[in-house]
Order: sequence, then structure tokens, then C-alpha cells
Amino acid sequence: MRAKSFAGMACNLAGAIEAIGDRWSFVILRDLAMRPWRYDDLRTANGIPTTTLSQHLASLEANGLVEKHAYQASPPRHDYRLTAKGRDLVPALVALAEWGDRWDASGRGAPPVIRIDRETGHQLKTALVDAETGALVPADRIAVIAGPGADAALRNRLARPTPDPKGAA
Amino acid sequence: MRAKSFAGMACNLAGAIEAIGDRWSFVILRDLAMRPWRYDDLRTANGIPTTTLSQHLASLEANGLVEKHAYQASPPRHDYRLTAKGRDLVPALVALAEWGDRWDASGRGAPPVIRIDRETGHQLKTALVDAETGALVPADRIAVIAGPGADAALRNRLARPTPDPKGAA
Repeated sequence: MRAKSFAGMACNLAGAIEAIGDRWSFVILRDLAMRPWRYDDLRTANGIPTTTLSQHLASLEANGLVEKHAYQASPPRHDYRLTAKGRDLVPALVALAEWGDRWDASGRGAPPVIRIDRETGHQLKTALVDAETGALVPADRIAVIAGPGADAALRNRLARPTPDPKGAA
Repeated sequence: MRAKSFAGMACNLAGAIEAIGDRWSFVILRDLAMRPWRYDDLRTANGIPTTTLSQHLASLEANGLVEKHAYQASPPRHDYRLTAKGRDLVPALVALAEWGDRWDASGRGAPPVIRIDRETGHQLKTALVDAETGALVPADRIAVIAGPGADAALRNRLARPTPDPKGAA
């Protein structure tokens, strides 16, 4: 199923998913987060149909997350790499994979991969922190308030601070 | 377009996306992360077609991320809430939204919402940290190694430590 465009939604989570695309896009970004990949390697490693892979790479390129890089001049050959915008998505991909680890989303019973700091060898994790102090904050303390890009509809929606399942919409 | 099932892939990122679903699912989870929602409120707030919303809620419920909660006995009424498994996804949703903020994915020019700590009022952010020391680690220091759930194909793939765009697949 193809969702309608979320581009008009005042939400940067919806916007992020719009920029990334569907589930194949996450798999492609995951691979490119490790190293540059050639088209045929991406296709065979994941069993992605040619048309699907071409469409997804074109979309990721159009949205500025992936770029072609010429690695050979004659005959001309290129591979695919993450842009700075694409690399900046890696922590979010890690957060999704960590959730998959905690809930065994792959059904393997144990994490297929472990993410480590290449300098220290220590395991890495994503965490929610206080932007001022860097202190860890539990996720159940998140509150959402209107930001400078909020429109009237969003401000109205955020003005309902408490759960009110019996109230009017 | 409907992607093929990723359930057989030895990857918890692919597994997470499989469990979540498509873009509508992210929007539904985002709303439920704030408070319980009734069906009609979810539908009208986001302009989701009825069939689409029903299918997505059923899928999220089947995957254990969302549950129905009876808030009134007579006549019987229920709303939708995140389960513990669904709430555990919130930091990953925040990480995606933060990327959207940094790259103006909504096109609003400024973040529509800001996430704060309800206890301190300080702004929150997600960060990559050393799991042992809690120290912040830059994303470009992430290395991926085989975990206990890796199969032979994945171990083989991870055994290629350096980019080699000219090498054989």
C-alpha cells in the first residue's frame, strides 16, 4: 500500500519517514551506513528486485540521503554512498535496531549484530539525554510542546495536556 | 508498494520496520506516544481513511505495540494505547523526529514541536553513548560486529571490514 504524501503535515517525524521511504529504503540505508556499495552488490545481498532497487536509490538520491560516487573513470563505474544528510540518520537507525534487539524483532533469539565504538571496543547504545546537562532521562518523562514551526492546528492539539478519552475530539 | 516480508532477514532494524509497518504506522505511534486515542479522533486528526486506520491498528495490535483499553463499560467503549513494547519505541521515534528537525523534513523552516523533560523543562535529545561509561560517542565511530544471533551469511558479510568498491561482491 502506498501512503499519501506526508509533506504537508507539520511533523518532522512524518517528514523523516517521507524522506526515507518504505522498508526497503531502511535496508539500503543500513547497508550504506557500513560502507559504499555497488548497485549489483546491494541487489544480490538483499534479493531486491532491480526495478525496486533503482526506484529506491533514485528516491533516496532525490531526497539528498544517498549519492553516486565515481570510483573508476574508464570504463566509468560508480557506487552509492550516504551523504552527510544520510549519515546523520545513522543514530535513528541504531535506535530502531536497538528496539529490534530488545524485542527480538528478527526472531533470532539474540542480536545478529552488535554496535561498538571502533576506538574503545565498548558497546554503544542510544540514550535520551538532557540537552543542557547530558544527564540520562527516562523516556516516560518526555513532554511535547509547540515549537517555532507549529501551525494553529498543531498548537490546538498540543494544548490538550492530559489524557481525556471521554472528552470531545 | 508493498515490500516483501523481512521476517527472515537476520536484522533487527529490518525486523523493527516489519513490526512497525509503513508510514501511517509511524504517525499512529507518534499520536499514541502522547496519550490514549479513540478511533474516530485518530482518524479525523490525521485524515486517515477508515480502512487504512483499521488495518494499521490491527497490525500494530497483532505485533504487540498497541492495545485496546476499555474506558467505559456501558455502552462499551475503548481507546487505543501503546503497550510497553510500543512505548519502548518512543526514543527511536524521537531520533527520527530529531533528524527531521535538523534537515527540516516538514518544510516548516523550524521544528513544529520541541521535546522537553516534564520534570525539569529542559530540552531533550537522543545521543549515542558508550554503554559502559555513558560518555557521548560520535556516530562516525560506530563499527558493527557479528552478534550471538548472526548466521553464516551475516558473519561472512561483516568479515569485510574495509570499503572495497572495486572488489568482487
